[in-house]
Amino acid sequence: MFDVAGPLAYARANSKRFLSELTDFVRIPTVSAQPRHKEDVKRGALWLAKHLRRAGLKNVKVIPTRRHPLVYADSRGRPDGPTVLFYGHYDVQPVDPVDEWSSPPFEPRIRGNDLYGRGASDDKGQLLAQIKALESCLRTAGGRLPINIKCIFEGEEEIGSPNLPSFLTRNRGALGADVAVLSDSSIPAPDRPAITCSLRGALSMELEVRGPEADLHSGKFGGAVHDPVQVLCEMIAGLHDKNRRIAIPGFYDRVLEYGEEERAYMKTVGPSDARITRDAQVEKGRGEYGFTQYERTTIRPALTINGITGGYQGKGNKSIIPALARAKLGFRLVKGQQPREIEDLVRRHIRRITPRTVHCSIRTTLSAKPIEINRNHFSINAAEAAYSKAFGSKPVFVRSGGTIPAVNLFKEILGVPTVLMGFGLPGDRIHAPDEKFHLPNFYKGIAACIRFLAEIASRRSLMAHPAKGRVKRMPAALRGNA
Amino acid sequence: MFDVAGPLAYARANSKRFLSELTDFVRIPTVSAQPRHKEDVKRGALWLAKHLRRAGLKNVKVIPTRRHPLVYADSRGRPDGPTVLFYGHYDVQPVDPVDEWSSPPFEPRIRGNDLYGRGASDDKGQLLAQIKALESCLRTAGGRLPINIKCIFEGEEEIGSPNLPSFLTRNRGALGADVAVLSDSSIPAPDRPAITCSLRGALSMELEVRGPEADLHSGKFGGAVHDPVQVLCEMIAGLHDKNRRIAIPGFYDRVLEYGEEERAYMKTVGPSDARITRDAQVEKGRGEYGFTQYERTTIRPALTINGITGGYQGKGNKSIIPALARAKLGFRLVKGQQPREIEDLVRRHIRRITPRTVHCSIRTTLSAKPIEINRNHFSINAAEAAYSKAFGSKPVFVRSGGTIPAVNLFKEILGVPTVLMGFGLPGDRIHAPDEKFHLPNFYKGIAACIRFLAEIASRRSLMAHPAKGRVKRMPAALRGNA
Repeated sequence: MFDVAGPLAYARANSKRFLSELTDFVRIPTVSAQPRHKEDVKRGALWLAKHLRRAGLKNVKVIPTRRHPLVYADSRGRPDGPTVLFYGHYDVQPVDPVDEWSSPPFEPRIRGNDLYGRGASDDKGQLLAQIKALESCLRTAGGRLPINIKCIFEGEEEIGSPNLPSFLTRNRGALGADVAVLSDSSIPAPDRPAITCSLRGALSMELEVRGPEADLHSGKFGGAVHDPVQVLCEMIAGLHDKNRRIAIPGFYDRVLEYGEEERAYMKTVGPSDARITRDAQVEKGRGEYGFTQYERTTIRPALTINGITGGYQGKGNKSIIPALARAKLGFRLVKGQQPREIEDLVRRHIRRITPRTVHCSIRTTLSAKPIEINRNHFSINAAEAAYSKAFGSKPVFVRSGGTIPAVNLFKEILGVPTVLMGFGLPGDRIHAPDEKFHLPNFYKGIAACIRFLAEIASRRSLMAHPAKGRVKRMPAALRGNA
Repeated sequence: MFDVAGPLAYARANSKRFLSELTDFVRIPTVSAQPRHKEDVKRGALWLAKHLRRAGLKNVKVIPTRRHPLVYADSRGRPDGPTVLFYGHYDVQPVDPVDEWSSPPFEPRIRGNDLYGRGASDDKGQLLAQIKALESCLRTAGGRLPINIKCIFEGEEEIGSPNLPSFLTRNRGALGADVAVLSDSSIPAPDRPAITCSLRGALSMELEVRGPEADLHSGKFGGAVHDPVQVLCEMIAGLHDKNRRIAIPGFYDRVLEYGEEERAYMKTVGPSDARITRDAQVEKGRGEYGFTQYERTTIRPALTINGITGGYQGKGNKSIIPALARAKLGFRLVKGQQPREIEDLVRRHIRRITPRTVHCSIRTTLSAKPIEINRNHFSINAAEAAYSKAFGSKPVFVRSGGTIPAVNLFKEILGVPTVLMGFGLPGDRIHAPDEKFHLPNFYKGIAACIRFLAEIASRRSLMAHPAKGRVKRMPAALRGNA
């Protein structure tokens, strides 16, 4: 147990510097997807490492991977104390279309209560809130906290975390923790904090239909050959039925049907149909009958076609029957559904509906289980208490339709549950021009993290299952994969 | 009337030189689609112009257009004699994949009876057969033939003849003729000459489905928004019915149903189902019930999807609901169908089937009427006689599933019917690696063209409607559009 008064006062006293540091951080164009920013990403990692050292963390390491480095740091508190794993990412999305920014994406500006810049909200601002909370605690406690801290900040989140799984696997012993904290999500409004309590799973598959050996002349052969694009379209069209459900036999067999109580709760705390449709910038929503838009995007599975390609796509005409056509199928899965089982059902269904005139192949490119968080877990109780005190109102439980691979990885590789403690807002325009971070959320986020650590430390009863001893194995054993 | 003995003897005596000239011609990489070959295309035009002068043609002009030049030449015979318009193209297709060529595409090689090289058959060999026939006639007749000749050789056929329509329109007075001869097609076998008697029409349309304003996160919105790719697939899937017919109301209303006699004739002279399926390199053919493969590709309309595009098409995944999806619809039309009428039917149908969750637009990118040649036209009789004598057997009438825009343009702009007198073979691999031209067809083609000119000249009865006087207006009036 430690007193939060000191750390909170430290955070208040240093808030100006914190903001200036965030501004410096946002200034580094750590665009992980673009090779020309490779050195910038590295610079971001080095900046972060230096910063973690200054904040009082130990064993700070920039760990190379095949592409962009991970930054690790820790703080050993009490060997028998609980261990919290902080996770965030310092890489950012590309800035295109750059013309649509009101100010240059890497020249952060403050307008009103918001800091504008790429990465301000996703995820530099949220990540730095974690670090500033750690700094506030460490600096006021003489560097000794009653809990153990580990930090993993990666530079590849925006490109799908390709090297995170192997890093976690190689270092699973050293990375043990009681709970992981991920601050890379949003709350409904500045005065309405929320804890994300479920994520959908994902199953991405690439479907390829091959017809003739090579593109054919559509004049010469049009009418006598089954067009692979037509076949692909027919197959995709058949993947939904008239009730707008996914028409793959067995697909819904294990879908958990939520009870009236939970659905009523969702209605209370979740966005309205109109809000979701407006956020999507479409005139009319559309989905499975019998469910609200919020339910359709969180507790019901979905299939979207993320991309399709075939034949000639340039200007004008090319008279061909394309040799092949491809589509990327993106399934979102919900509690009860196992990606592997669904994968089998899809493969079987595709085999069944493939006409004999073409060849079909299907391969899985991403697979992640749905996540439903145990609301009675001590870390969730701690987060509830921390949010209540820092934001002045009790957080609600919201559901996300997305998939955060890191949450699955922590669970599956490390056996660690994650608390999704986000400080962003729905209007932060992440991934889009004019991304911004609401600065009051930055400061409240720091306070919430400080309080979260104190809450964790105070919940002695929960210390029945600490990740004892593991902390001692780090960091010498940490292995990158460069 | 002129005696063919002299010209035929001249052609025989000079055959070696003719072949060496063809080789020189093929050596010039006149790839019209690739900007880096722009100067080569021009060089090809200049080579051709020089060659036409040497062959004895007059008023040779290289006429610039917005992209690649046209080459014009003529020979004034008798003002009251018939006028024949020769057409061909000196540009060629790109050579990719260049690794699959047995010898470099622009280093022509003779193997067996074939000349290998890009453009050998399409269309340099066939075009040069025309010129060599003209040379043989002009050189043995002291430059004076009893008929008038006009030549238009374009350098943009392989990119869709973008500047031919305006050239013909601007010079319609000067380009009048009784008949056009186009040697850019094939005969079934070296000993089986054929005249193409029908071409399908074409209607190319681009269909675009727009959903959300911008790509959406498929995790956040998947299940609540109608995916434009899915909509496009559903629309395309619905364009064919269970009988494999095009499911657009009214589409078949004006399709000419051919009688038993013509269908029996087609069975006799046309390729078998197995042959067409084999040529297409597919395991199974597929098309409208109740018709042979040959019928499906010539006297029945067809719809192929020449290209489709939407969303993310790179490697890996991108979690989006794409903002839009597009497809290129390629209709082939047959006798009785009017492209404009069909266009209206398609537009009306698309409007009817567009769900209210998306916006759809459709635009026409190509429109060409079907062509059915009058087999009793004097020029066809002349071609029959010419083929019979040159190839030693009577030509059959074959149908093509393709569309040759020049034929439509000559008919619609100049009011001139075209004789499709081709000398290629089905195995010439045009547009593909190892394109070749069967050299016996080159020599027989020259002979056939010589005899065709003589036949035209001899058919005095046909001179009732010569394009009198027009020839005098050229070439001063010829206008390009550079």
